[in-house]
Amino acid sequence: MKILVINAGSSSVKYQLFDMTNEKVMAKGLCDRIGIPGGNFKHTVPEKDLTYKKEIQIENHSHAIRLIVDALVNKEHGVIASMSEIDAVGHRVLHGGEKFSGSVLVDDNVVEAVKECSELGPLHNPHNLTGIFACEEIMGKIPQVAVFDTGFHQTMPDYAYLYALPYEYYEKYKIRRYGFHGTSHRYVSMRTAQLLGKDPKDLKIVTCHLGNGSSVAAVDGGKCLDTSMGLTPLEGIMMGTRCGSIDPAIIPLLMQKEGLDAKQIDEVMNKKSGILGITGGVTSDNRDIEKGAAEGNKRYQLIENMLCHQLVKLIGGYAAAMGGVDAVVFTGGIGENNPHYRTRIADKLAFLGAEIDEEKNNTRGVEVDLSQNPEQTKLHLMVVPTNEELMIAKDTMEIVSGK
Amino acid sequence: MKILVINAGSSSVKYQLFDMTNEKVMAKGLCDRIGIPGGNFKHTVPEKDLTYKKEIQIENHSHAIRLIVDALVNKEHGVIASMSEIDAVGHRVLHGGEKFSGSVLVDDNVVEAVKECSELGPLHNPHNLTGIFACEEIMGKIPQVAVFDTGFHQTMPDYAYLYALPYEYYEKYKIRRYGFHGTSHRYVSMRTAQLLGKDPKDLKIVTCHLGNGSSVAAVDGGKCLDTSMGLTPLEGIMMGTRCGSIDPAIIPLLMQKEGLDAKQIDEVMNKKSGILGITGGVTSDNRDIEKGAAEGNKRYQLIENMLCHQLVKLIGGYAAAMGGVDAVVFTGGIGENNPHYRTRIADKLAFLGAEIDEEKNNTRGVEVDLSQNPEQTKLHLMVVPTNEELMIAKDTMEIVSGK
Repeated sequence: MKILVINAGSSSVKYQLFDMTNEKVMAKGLCDRIGIPGGNFKHTVPEKDLTYKKEIQIENHSHAIRLIVDALVNKEHGVIASMSEIDAVGHRVLHGGEKFSGSVLVDDNVVEAVKECSELGPLHNPHNLTGIFACEEIMGKIPQVAVFDTGFHQTMPDYAYLYALPYEYYEKYKIRRYGFHGTSHRYVSMRTAQLLGKDPKDLKIVTCHLGNGSSVAAVDGGKCLDTSMGLTPLEGIMMGTRCGSIDPAIIPLLMQKEGLDAKQIDEVMNKKSGILGITGGVTSDNRDIEKGAAEGNKRYQLIENMLCHQLVKLIGGYAAAMGGVDAVVFTGGIGENNPHYRTRIADKLAFLGAEIDEEKNNTRGVEVDLSQNPEQTKLHLMVVPTNEELMIAKDTMEIVSGK
Repeated sequence: MKILVINAGSSSVKYQLFDMTNEKVMAKGLCDRIGIPGGNFKHTVPEKDLTYKKEIQIENHSHAIRLIVDALVNKEHGVIASMSEIDAVGHRVLHGGEKFSGSVLVDDNVVEAVKECSELGPLHNPHNLTGIFACEEIMGKIPQVAVFDTGFHQTMPDYAYLYALPYEYYEKYKIRRYGFHGTSHRYVSMRTAQLLGKDPKDLKIVTCHLGNGSSVAAVDGGKCLDTSMGLTPLEGIMMGTRCGSIDPAIIPLLMQKEGLDAKQIDEVMNKKSGILGITGGVTSDNRDIEKGAAEGNKRYQLIENMLCHQLVKLIGGYAAAMGGVDAVVFTGGIGENNPHYRTRIADKLAFLGAEIDEEKNNTRGVEVDLSQNPEQTKLHLMVVPTNEELMIAKDTMEIVSGK
């Protein structure tokens, strides 16, 4: 079975075509700057180490899907003979609200429900839908599956997802914790269980997805108990440009002091804070921080200290909420590629049984149990590179094949 | 040495007179509804089980201090022969900003500095100062000491007190975590070390001050490493009427949806949220919740679940941030008087070595090590009733006697 995975944003469409017989990526790429000048298209065939690039004005999402399909069946850089070889399309959809706890086959009702959730994910859901419509336009009645970023977290109990605000705001506006990166937390926690040779039901795992956006989740017996992102992806640990959790009273105070309206303060917290904010607008990229801190930059060292402190508090908090922890797993750009943070977290978690093997830790982007003695350790420290696209492809295959 | 402890609010003054030879309260009381109709004065002499009450229009804070001094020297219900027996006055002051990490003798410079901190504590600092001026007016040049609610937390390192907002807000407005209930966290952590017969330097303690306002602190080696309240007393765990930590993005969203301005949303978060918010405006009192939940009220049970979940996350997070924990201590109205929460927290912390003795736990408001085996336990669970007034009296004595 061949499955096309689509991640449609406002002005871009990312894609990967999977051959599910071996779960390999046949081709992948990106349509960028859709509807704006300077559009470009990139298509890669990993197995042949082949990349095709083209500068082209991309009119809309349908045009993007047309370009993708054309590239996939192209005689020179294509990987399939005809569009009919694609059995199904899997879409990343940001917000499933309280309606979707799992992935679903797209039909009119699903489209309506995703539209209704747009209120909660206004920057993403409409574009995710546009991607679905564009695929239908270009590829006809092909089965399409929606995989929600919030889905995995829908197992959270009410006491974890409710905020202590007037209850009517939950009833009227569905203001609650939803959590994001769900597909990543699900993939990584399942893969961790596989690697440890255990049933997910028997494990208490804290998954740390650390990238430009970061979130941490408590996965107890294969189910999400709690996660650090909330109603939106702003809450939790500090990120590239997002502040994470702060005293809520700061917001009205800053609005008054700086003369900001609601939209402007939202922009400050989402776009001008986090690493970017603490560096005074210099960089939002943790790779710069890693380099600068090692060279002695005090402000960059402060950022590393803040990040580690916030992360260790989340891990310890979730461990306690689960009544214990068997594995702490790092994933995402920073999680997979920053041995320094992993060492520091391990030091703090020594009291829970963590013992990191620095030789194993000196790796980037590969699956590894960092424990000195993986057979006997009380707490596994793992790196598991995330693969949200594969997870989407697997869900799609499962649903389409009626499993 | 006899020390008068004053806690001056906008329309009330609370007081306690200590005999520091035995640290006993000679008299205590309250002037309420200052400057508004229906004023009243209450004066108690604990040793004689004597209470004196009077309905009286109290003009201002000077009038209140005059009433207090008159009561203290009164022939019938007084406890001293003349005002000159009072050696010093200790004042609770809410916000010491970054200027005050310890208690200080009040002079003109201190008054100026406390005024400058009023920006950070606008609802309290001006009234705390009024209390100081009133004492000077009535009692003349008596030594006065200011004890700050934020003082104990000034040992927090920058990575714990900084928010990941644009750094300029810290520089311009001193927006950072300060923490509150400092006098309580200090008293309780010191007393815990005493009770365990240990040097505070050798202990990692999590102190949980749970009352109408609640905060948790990580006290590592006698110093505060982190605490849950922030710039203001709104952040952290949910409280009687305060929401505690929420996704910051909720605030601009709610302002737009409900048409609220900065002041109104601040009021929602501080006065209409927490327990009061979840009950839909029914009660903010945890005693009602305890009773209702035991009788099967689902919404009240939800509140208990939320509170325990949030609390256990904070405790576990601070344990990890300290790299371990030797004692978890409960104090404040709820902390001292709610065995149910303590049982539930103990269950979650069993993986850290907590073993609660339910017989010992079935007490309210007394100092007790709840552990089944206090001599051998890895994690002490303690109840230590707070005594902020005694702490203020002790600080005052120390400073006045030039120790």
